Amino acid sequence: MVRKLQERLDVGDFVVEQIQIPEPRQGEVLTEAQWISLDPYLAGRMRSWSGPEPDWLQGIVVGRMVGRVVTSQHPTFSPGDWVAGPGRWQSHDLNPGDSLHKLTLEPGISPSMFLGVLGSSGLTAWVGIKRILRPKKGETLTISSAAGIVGGIAGQLAKGAGAQVVGIAGGPQKCSRVVDDLGFDDCLDYRHSAFRECLAKAVNGSVDAHFENVGAPTLDPVLGLMRDHGRIALCGLIAHYLDDNPVTLTNFRKLLSSGLSLQGFRALDYLQDSDRAASELREGIKAGTITVRETITRGLENAPQAYLSMLEGGGEGKHLIRLE
Amino acid sequence: MVRKLQERLDVGDFVVEQIQIPEPRQGEVLTEAQWISLDPYLAGRMRSWSGPEPDWLQGIVVGRMVGRVVTSQHPTFSPGDWVAGPGRWQSHDLNPGDSLHKLTLEPGISPSMFLGVLGSSGLTAWVGIKRILRPKKGETLTISSAAGIVGGIAGQLAKGAGAQVVGIAGGPQKCSRVVDDLGFDDCLDYRHSAFRECLAKAVNGSVDAHFENVGAPTLDPVLGLMRDHGRIALCGLIAHYLDDNPVTLTNFRKLLSSGLSLQGFRALDYLQDSDRAASELREGIKAGTITVRETITRGLENAPQAYLSMLEGGGEGKHLIRLE
Repeated sequence: MVRKLQERLDVGDFVVEQIQIPEPRQGEVLTEAQWISLDPYLAGRMRSWSGPEPDWLQGIVVGRMVGRVVTSQHPTFSPGDWVAGPGRWQSHDLNPGDSLHKLTLEPGISPSMFLGVLGSSGLTAWVGIKRILRPKKGETLTISSAAGIVGGIAGQLAKGAGAQVVGIAGGPQKCSRVVDDLGFDDCLDYRHSAFRECLAKAVNGSVDAHFENVGAPTLDPVLGLMRDHGRIALCGLIAHYLDDNPVTLTNFRKLLSSGLSLQGFRALDYLQDSDRAASELREGIKAGTITVRETITRGLENAPQAYLSMLEGGGEGKHLIRLE
Repeated sequence: MVRKLQERLDVGDFVVEQIQIPEPRQGEVLTEAQWISLDPYLAGRMRSWSGPEPDWLQGIVVGRMVGRVVTSQHPTFSPGDWVAGPGRWQSHDLNPGDSLHKLTLEPGISPSMFLGVLGSSGLTAWVGIKRILRPKKGETLTISSAAGIVGGIAGQLAKGAGAQVVGIAGGPQKCSRVVDDLGFDDCLDYRHSAFRECLAKAVNGSVDAHFENVGAPTLDPVLGLMRDHGRIALCGLIAHYLDDNPVTLTNFRKLLSSGLSLQGFRALDYLQDSDRAASELREGIKAGTITVRETITRGLENAPQAYLSMLEGGGEGKHLIRLE
């Protein structure tokens, strides 16, 4: 599946192509994807492509898949093994064996979890909470895109640390589930006309730490509520991936006047924490303290629509394509 | 001198008033100001006043003066002593003795320095470099408002730490002096049509750390040049004190995509470092490694014009009113 170049990403930019299933050479593994991860940050790279072939399909393949080994020329892997690894949006692919990771399944742990809570989404949430914001008991922490996979896990980790956690999400249904299913103390609908007033009330006028996944629409109101020396973890800017417009913040001065810190971060800079994060999250899932939701779309041909719908706020939790 | 309320600060907002010189009560000191500090950050407070009397003249008096004791009802101070302390824009004032600081003068150290390099401007620069950015030998550091007192000292401290220091200032004359007098490696004129290209060349395409005093006009181009894990100390927003307009950044996404950190800070949160900063800077002045410039305006009646001119980029170094 490749994309034709346009100004703004839309469904018409994608086409489905048939490819020849290749043969693995020495050290390589042929995999058949069962699950493909839909990752918001890819949108920026898709838009930046200007040559005959997009560079995000070459060199660094940035997507992720979980699947099974078809044939292997690498000693670690045998046909039928479950693996996670780099994944383009295609059913079969060759990967160097060293780029693949064999999965350990057990009751309660499904293969798709290795693309979400036990993969980079879980690592991202873990880093934002455990390495950057480090919430303390009694602190008030806000999280935007709380119904998303990263926000949902981050909130549950912050609850585990004893913080009061207030989510922000789009629509009353998502907000209810963030509270009822994920155990947040409260969740506010940013589309509601009284959103700012409700948020101020929910946090009792003051936010100690904020986990940002969206951008200006949520960051700006939260900035206005941050207390002195508050911390912000900048994890995502989903509101700003689909265009190049400048980011405008009415409350930018608050960073200075309240002596705030803002830390942009990417999970790829914390790969050394992968095993620890996955292990803690796996224990949390088994103990019932970490709950994850998935939005599953069947069939590769439906991936573009599912991807754009996710960028516009549709669905909840981890967004996946299921191939069979 | 008090200000009438208006939307945007201008000279017509200020009036000169005669006041009765008060008598000190027990524990108080009557001072006669010789020098009054003009501080950019006050502009925001001046604009926020809405009652019959501005609250920045009540309670917390935020300005600073250096002057001499006229009469004292406090055991530490005697008539004629040089002191630094809180200062409104007026020739005489009462202060609790505990809010005053007796000055130790010596050759090369003038009284006005206690409002700049040996006062909060020096502390601000010291904190931004020594506590926040901590530049290492060989790193490239940029500083906006490099001809200002804080930027000028910060750059000299960063040079002392072995960094390559590139300033940003308004106009070719200021830029020349930043290089020739203050010893920066380079200084770029943000008003120049090829500013962005020249800046990119001066930093060889990559900035490790940035000291921001201005706001969007300088932060935005520097953000575009920050390397992965770069650090930004947000010290001032002089471009945004005179209005309430939102702050718009084209390169805001860089905070995320390069995993940058941004730390807003205020000298008042680091008062425990005051003595150490002043002592190191005093040694630097005596050794000739720290040079400071002053822009001096004579007469309180000229303070409003001098203040607004400073906010618009006039003058260099520490801005002071001289009273005699």
